[in-house]
Amino acid sequence: VKAHTLAELASRFGLDLRGDGERRITGMGSLERAGPGDIAFYAGPRHAAALAQTRAAAVILRAGDLGACPSAALVADNPHAAFARVAALFDRTPHLSSGVHPSAVVDAGARIAPGVAVGPACVIEAGAVLEEGVQLGPGCIVRAGSRIGAASRLVARVTVGHECIVGRRCVLQPGAVIGSDGFGLARDGEGWVKVPQLGRVRLGDDVEIGANTTVDRGALEDTVIEDGVKIDNLVQVAHNVRIGRHSAIAACVGIAGSAHIGARVQIGGAAGVAGHLTVADDTVLTAMSMTTHTIAEAGVYSSGTGIMPNALWRRSVARFRQLDDLARRLKALERRLDGVEGDDR
Amino acid sequence: VKAHTLAELASRFGLDLRGDGERRITGMGSLERAGPGDIAFYAGPRHAAALAQTRAAAVILRAGDLGACPSAALVADNPHAAFARVAALFDRTPHLSSGVHPSAVVDAGARIAPGVAVGPACVIEAGAVLEEGVQLGPGCIVRAGSRIGAASRLVARVTVGHECIVGRRCVLQPGAVIGSDGFGLARDGEGWVKVPQLGRVRLGDDVEIGANTTVDRGALEDTVIEDGVKIDNLVQVAHNVRIGRHSAIAACVGIAGSAHIGARVQIGGAAGVAGHLTVADDTVLTAMSMTTHTIAEAGVYSSGTGIMPNALWRRSVARFRQLDDLARRLKALERRLDGVEGDDR
Amino acid sequence: VKAHTLAELASRFGLDLRGDGERRITGMGSLERAGPGDIAFYAGPRHAAALAQTRAAAVILRAGDLGACPSAALVADNPHAAFARVAALFDRTPHLSSGVHPSAVVDAGARIAPGVAVGPACVIEAGAVLEEGVQLGPGCIVRAGSRIGAASRLVARVTVGHECIVGRRCVLQPGAVIGSDGFGLARDGEGWVKVPQLGRVRLGDDVEIGANTTVDRGALEDTVIEDGVKIDNLVQVAHNVRIGRHSAIAACVGIAGSAHIGARVQIGGAAGVAGHLTVADDTVLTAMSMTTHTIAEAGVYSSGTGIMPNALWRRSVARFRQLDDLARRLKALERRLDGVEGDDR
Repeated sequence: VKAHTLAELASRFGLDLRGDGERRITGMGSLERAGPGDIAFYAGPRHAAALAQTRAAAVILRAGDLGACPSAALVADNPHAAFARVAALFDRTPHLSSGVHPSAVVDAGARIAPGVAVGPACVIEAGAVLEEGVQLGPGCIVRAGSRIGAASRLVARVTVGHECIVGRRCVLQPGAVIGSDGFGLARDGEGWVKVPQLGRVRLGDDVEIGANTTVDRGALEDTVIEDGVKIDNLVQVAHNVRIGRHSAIAACVGIAGSAHIGARVQIGGAAGVAGHLTVADDTVLTAMSMTTHTIAEAGVYSSGTGIMPNALWRRSVARFRQLDDLARRLKALERRLDGVEGDDR
Repeated sequence: VKAHTLAELASRFGLDLRGDGERRITGMGSLERAGPGDIAFYAGPRHAAALAQTRAAAVILRAGDLGACPSAALVADNPHAAFARVAALFDRTPHLSSGVHPSAVVDAGARIAPGVAVGPACVIEAGAVLEEGVQLGPGCIVRAGSRIGAASRLVARVTVGHECIVGRRCVLQPGAVIGSDGFGLARDGEGWVKVPQLGRVRLGDDVEIGANTTVDRGALEDTVIEDGVKIDNLVQVAHNVRIGRHSAIAACVGIAGSAHIGARVQIGGAAGVAGHLTVADDTVLTAMSMTTHTIAEAGVYSSGTGIMPNALWRRSVARFRQLDDLARRLKALERRLDGVEGDDR
Repeated sequence: VKAHTLAELASRFGLDLRGDGERRITGMGSLERAGPGDIAFYAGPRHAAALAQTRAAAVILRAGDLGACPSAALVADNPHAAFARVAALFDRTPHLSSGVHPSAVVDAGARIAPGVAVGPACVIEAGAVLEEGVQLGPGCIVRAGSRIGAASRLVARVTVGHECIVGRRCVLQPGAVIGSDGFGLARDGEGWVKVPQLGRVRLGDDVEIGANTTVDRGALEDTVIEDGVKIDNLVQVAHNVRIGRHSAIAACVGIAGSAHIGARVQIGGAAGVAGHLTVADDTVLTAMSMTTHTIAEAGVYSSGTGIMPNALWRRSVARFRQLDDLARRLKALERRLDGVEGDDR
């Protein structure tokens, strides 16, 4: 088991130590479940009771919360971020040793920087470039002319289509597909002609792409995901979409073609965003919401109706279909009552 | 063509035979489409007309329905389950012969029980354990320290992340990802720090996971899917979710982080369940419903509004935005009418 | 850089040339962004301003629009379709050279036509048939007894299950799964018995299947996708579904078991279609709509409510739960007012 003393963690991450610096930390935990070798973090007053009762060896918290802490502590301006950085020490995600596994198929025309790890059953096509420190887990495919930026990690079974660009320090989870064809169709009589998708996908630095998420290549120009964007599992990003820096997109979201999502936007799970519109910087779209027009002003936007007991729901839905009629009848009533009241006067 | 006599099926599955036991069964069919070599099943009165006209060689049904059956029959307490068991005899899903395919990459530190089949292009990392009778179809990846329980089958191109646990007799469909990183982010200035996901995924026995479904590993504790849970395609199970035994989850569902789904819960297609809530045992959530709060009591819950002709829908949606106003105007009318009626008295 | 003269394009695609036939075209662009080597197309009056200002070398348009075109032109009855055909000349999607890559695993019992390309890390099982001109990109799996029709292309990491049929000139994007098991379950006490899925998937000719899309095999009969159907990414097609010719289905759609979708149907993104129903030919279902009953007559159908500012949404949703009550109160008011007005007379 890996262990780090509190003093070591304090110095490594620039945190102030309160308590016994020799205390050994062997893992991470929540306030509720941390054991005597674990370090936890305190996010704020909602967790005050858990803090008071924690069995953690130490807690990462703000200076102002030290008084309430029953254990040793590391003081941070941003306890959650500090916790994330400490947790990286205990991450057991397999780290591949550098070199190309003999079962990988690497085209002679690919360029692989020193220190790159290419795992078993990977395929790297001609003209692909893997910069320093890139890690390709098992079964990854990097197609012709693509570039994977320094220190990026393709966890396993990731596909990067031809001529796509992945920035530095990106993480692509298993099954992610970057650079599939956009859904471009031209009507032709009763059927369709496929419109070749000539653009690329460009991911900035520090982008994360979730498991089985798909990012289509652009039709003519590129699909662009800017620095620091985080995308969860099973998300669809259609052709020519642009997502601004540091936006975060939860699982099962679909973003249709040519939508432009601003910076620092947050999109909840299973939300849908229609094509050819703009979402302002700093907008929040809640889970399962349906955005069909441009959002010009930041704010929290929502749609959908939550669950009800089935019988009540059936009645409500029936009434929903009558809504226009109900509104007209209400208007008529108001006029009639105006008349009655007029008569009375 | 495989063939089994009715007498053989009756004895093998403990069913009562009515009719000619020498009749040869060569396949399965629905009541409507079964041919003279097929066996069908009768689910109940809604299918009475189909039963009367069936051309099936034999029908699996309850004893009480024998009178209405024009053909030979096998009598079962649960005809659908009996049909499922008989159907397994006619399943042509490729069965891999035991042994490790020469193209598979198996780390010397993996433990492979006798009788295990590892198909072409599989990758098994150090410390992984494949118990007796495990079948790995082509292109599967089992990462460091994972365990696949006895008689489980990874159909093809399945990814099991490091240190995850798959129970016995599980079936994982193609493209499934078990143990991708949860979507853990800590705010850091304008952007995000990735929170390492230190937990695992634990699947119980007899679990089925659909094609391209993703199950994230826990952040600190594990993501847990209990015995007998069945999950369809393209489902997202986020970190720290717990799903109780024998629950069934249809395709395209998203379950957000730390949601606790009870036992024997049924979730319809494309439903969404928010994080940090509890769904009571035996609850039914209908298709496309949105659950944003805890369900303390079992029942059928629904949300959403079904399709309407587009013009009516546009009017209804416009009125939906006025609903609060409409309700206030209705209240005002009631007061005014109270006044008018009071005057009249 | 590839280049084609305008005269060459006109003769190759049967289009009328207006302007300098020697002009060299080196790429495709939108009217707004095309540079002096690019060809663009004009879709109609909504783009009139862009046409007037385009810097494109040439524009593909209808004869009637020639007067408004500031550049050379190619005249087509269907400019969008002509543009798609021209664009294919500039498509840089990797074309595999014919032959079987040494890292591919091809069973001796598979039949591979001359001219077929099988890329690295592919697996072809016994009894599989790859017809003339088939292209299998890296990491594709074609299981026992399946058939891939002439000139079809499996882009990368596609899985085709046993005994499935893919027609001619199909394109299957990365991560697509054809022939996973349908979600067939029979109740058995507290839990479930898996119902073996004995049917196949049959794709017609000219079908496109998107990245990470899943198409389940039929339970008894086949799941059928007819000629010319185009399906986007992350779509779920359940067992026994039938989709009629030339239908187009956008990303994130789910179609439940035994639904029959007509011909030339268009389904918007993230829409859901329930099982055991029929959707009439030429129907349009808009994005995120929920179809729970048969659509007998073609038309545009919609459901859902779009986003609102969160505070307004909260009030609207609260009122939605009171809708039945509001409607009853409205009815009561009408009766009371009838009474009042009656009194007045």
